[in-house]
Amino acid sequence: MRMVDLIIKKRQGEALSRREIAFWIDGYVKGIIPDYQTSAMAMAILFRGMNEEEVINLTDLMEHSGETLDLSNLKGVKVDKHSTGGVGDKTSLVLGPMVVACGATLAKLSGRGLGHTGGTLDKLESIPGFNIAISGERFTDQVNDIGIVIAGQTQSLVPADKKMYALRDVTGTVESIPLIAASVMSKKLAAGTDAILLDVTLGNGAFMKDIDQARTLAKLMVKIGNGLNRDTRAVLSNMNEPLGMAVGNALEVKEAIAALRGEGPEDLMELCYTGGAVMLEQAKLCKDQAEGRKMLEQCIKDGSAFNKFVEMVKAQDGDIEYILHPEKFQVAKNIVPIYAKQSGYVKNIDALEIGLSSMRLGGGRETLNDVIDMSAGIMLNKKVGDKIASGEVLCYLHSNKDVDVINKISKDVAKSFEITKDFVEKPRVILEIIQ
Amino acid sequence: MRMVDLIIKKRQGEALSRREIAFWIDGYVKGIIPDYQTSAMAMAILFRGMNEEEVINLTDLMEHSGETLDLSNLKGVKVDKHSTGGVGDKTSLVLGPMVVACGATLAKLSGRGLGHTGGTLDKLESIPGFNIAISGERFTDQVNDIGIVIAGQTQSLVPADKKMYALRDVTGTVESIPLIAASVMSKKLAAGTDAILLDVTLGNGAFMKDIDQARTLAKLMVKIGNGLNRDTRAVLSNMNEPLGMAVGNALEVKEAIAALRGEGPEDLMELCYTGGAVMLEQAKLCKDQAEGRKMLEQCIKDGSAFNKFVEMVKAQDGDIEYILHPEKFQVAKNIVPIYAKQSGYVKNIDALEIGLSSMRLGGGRETLNDVIDMSAGIMLNKKVGDKIASGEVLCYLHSNKDVDVINKISKDVAKSFEITKDFVEKPRVILEIIQ
Repeated sequence: MRMVDLIIKKRQGEALSRREIAFWIDGYVKGIIPDYQTSAMAMAILFRGMNEEEVINLTDLMEHSGETLDLSNLKGVKVDKHSTGGVGDKTSLVLGPMVVACGATLAKLSGRGLGHTGGTLDKLESIPGFNIAISGERFTDQVNDIGIVIAGQTQSLVPADKKMYALRDVTGTVESIPLIAASVMSKKLAAGTDAILLDVTLGNGAFMKDIDQARTLAKLMVKIGNGLNRDTRAVLSNMNEPLGMAVGNALEVKEAIAALRGEGPEDLMELCYTGGAVMLEQAKLCKDQAEGRKMLEQCIKDGSAFNKFVEMVKAQDGDIEYILHPEKFQVAKNIVPIYAKQSGYVKNIDALEIGLSSMRLGGGRETLNDVIDMSAGIMLNKKVGDKIASGEVLCYLHSNKDVDVINKISKDVAKSFEITKDFVEKPRVILEIIQ
Repeated sequence: MRMVDLIIKKRQGEALSRREIAFWIDGYVKGIIPDYQTSAMAMAILFRGMNEEEVINLTDLMEHSGETLDLSNLKGVKVDKHSTGGVGDKTSLVLGPMVVACGATLAKLSGRGLGHTGGTLDKLESIPGFNIAISGERFTDQVNDIGIVIAGQTQSLVPADKKMYALRDVTGTVESIPLIAASVMSKKLAAGTDAILLDVTLGNGAFMKDIDQARTLAKLMVKIGNGLNRDTRAVLSNMNEPLGMAVGNALEVKEAIAALRGEGPEDLMELCYTGGAVMLEQAKLCKDQAEGRKMLEQCIKDGSAFNKFVEMVKAQDGDIEYILHPEKFQVAKNIVPIYAKQSGYVKNIDALEIGLSSMRLGGGRETLNDVIDMSAGIMLNKKVGDKIASGEVLCYLHSNKDVDVINKISKDVAKSFEITKDFVEKPRVILEIIQ
């Protein structure tokens, strides 16, 4: 078998067999097949696509390209949740403790933020002392003791994806639905969970801009997961405006704490209740999603979800005084309000621009080596559909940067709010459930 | 500027500016842009194509990626001829001396054969002593003295093409018309000629199988050449059967000698007369192609074309005794006839199969390191359109290999002749002239 013949086969629109995909992935991970052949193959796949069987084989072979976690000896039904990324997306911090408070088990490996999107690990690290480097026996013990852990990915999982993602990033081959699906799913499957809920975000702050594309990706990932024997479902969620009010690490953790105390913003709670109900159904902890939703509402009311979050922070060396008294979180030196220049209704808040502005205020990374200012970010005061009067505050910029820098950014942020005279309906946060 | 953005731009079907193509080609030749980005770009170009302006810029930038020859001080109008490759294609050996005998100047850089196609350098090297490593002052002096030289390419010309062609060969990106056109034309232009005649071969023994594709390639190369200020024209020629009767190095040289003596096969002579007339017109040595054709017929009749070939062989250290007495060429140990099993007309001779069989008989290279047996090859006894009786000889295999090996090959060769009862018209060798 020669790699060049496989590239030509795919280029001509033919399907690759499992043996052929294995030849490629094994050879690539071992360094026998060079980057320049893999990048040509990735580009051919971008143009020609892959059928379901090919993507399932690719995912399975990538999953097994390195170590995989075996959670089978841990207590409870292991559920996992993955978002394709967004702005202000602190869902894992709220939804994780909620489903665990209702009886599920969550052993989650998370990532860091880059560009306009944040990462769960960065958010958790804004809690002083919080340790994301939990692995081996300690990881297992924590799951058995309290049912929840959120930790960083180890280097040994899915080396094929690590190598291929870095290559795709510099060869213009990121935007291929089969390759995105295989990348996401190989990582989720290698983490050893029983059931997976995918949150496929959609809109200008998300990777997917188009509902047909998002639906295609979601359905494909659901087929891959189920094809490889994990109960996999997906929600399509709105990412045309940031999720909730807070964007930025400590700001989002404070919003998550408020949400767990029953004071969360409407869209975030709706995503947690609906997504959580699907997860509880996947874990067979409720007879249907309506019952699951009631359980989730109850765990917020009775404080058990909040307590679970406190338990997790404590187990991972975080200072729980910050969770019990969120006013202890350090606040940025400069807090600059942005005022509305006209009255009416908020029609749109450009999530991508808000995410990029939060990054520039110090709240995110442009490159993987940048250091994050945990206190920086943007607090929205209005959401899409809200009524606003001229002179009212649209949002607040939080930053330790110089006022000159902040003033420049404030112009972009102001432009990201679109205000109209006509009534605007509140957008739905969950657009579809795929199960 | 970032290479990844250029790849994405091309992948999305947009045109690249001259500055962008220069960034790519310069960076690639200098080793700043890695192979894996160039292979992804090549695959994107294969799917999305390039417009004329892009291909002209690409060709020009590739041409100037290394040294170029300056022939401007040499006597006469410099003409060049390039074939996209075929089986039994000894045209340069006949046409070159013919046009030079009529007053043109030919300073030609040729290549070697690979796979089923032969190369002019290999053919010339079957003449004992013939030296293809002519460069610098000696190259210039020979052109000024006798008007003709055929030599090997120097390493310093068009490094971008050398590097990119090797990469395309292993990444499934050879079959892109803009990249083929830029590759061919950058080499021809760097060789410093005033006018170029392209012979775009078409059919099962050629790279182009389809007339629309061949025409597209020919027109594109003509546009590139004229766009870069060289009078460029093209003929589309038939490569569904081998050209002439001889396939294999010494066999083809002997056929070329016969042709220069006025005993050439009909299709080869037609290609030389028609193509040569175009070249004489390009060199402004005749008032029209009809007059050019008469001049070419005359130079065969009066022996001046043959004498020019002898002069060239002598100037390049070849033993002219072989040219004057071609019976001196060493003949293969085994000459095996293939007989027709039915009577009728030859409908088809599979040129690809004949080329591959000649290679296996010892007459060609499977890899660049293989050594050629100059005496090996195939002599056709019948061409498409010829009448044949059962038991008559179709062709003779010439080889120094064991009889067992030859017998195996003879089965493939026998199958490559298609015989039908119905009358078959002789195919035209020149299908179109593009000027």
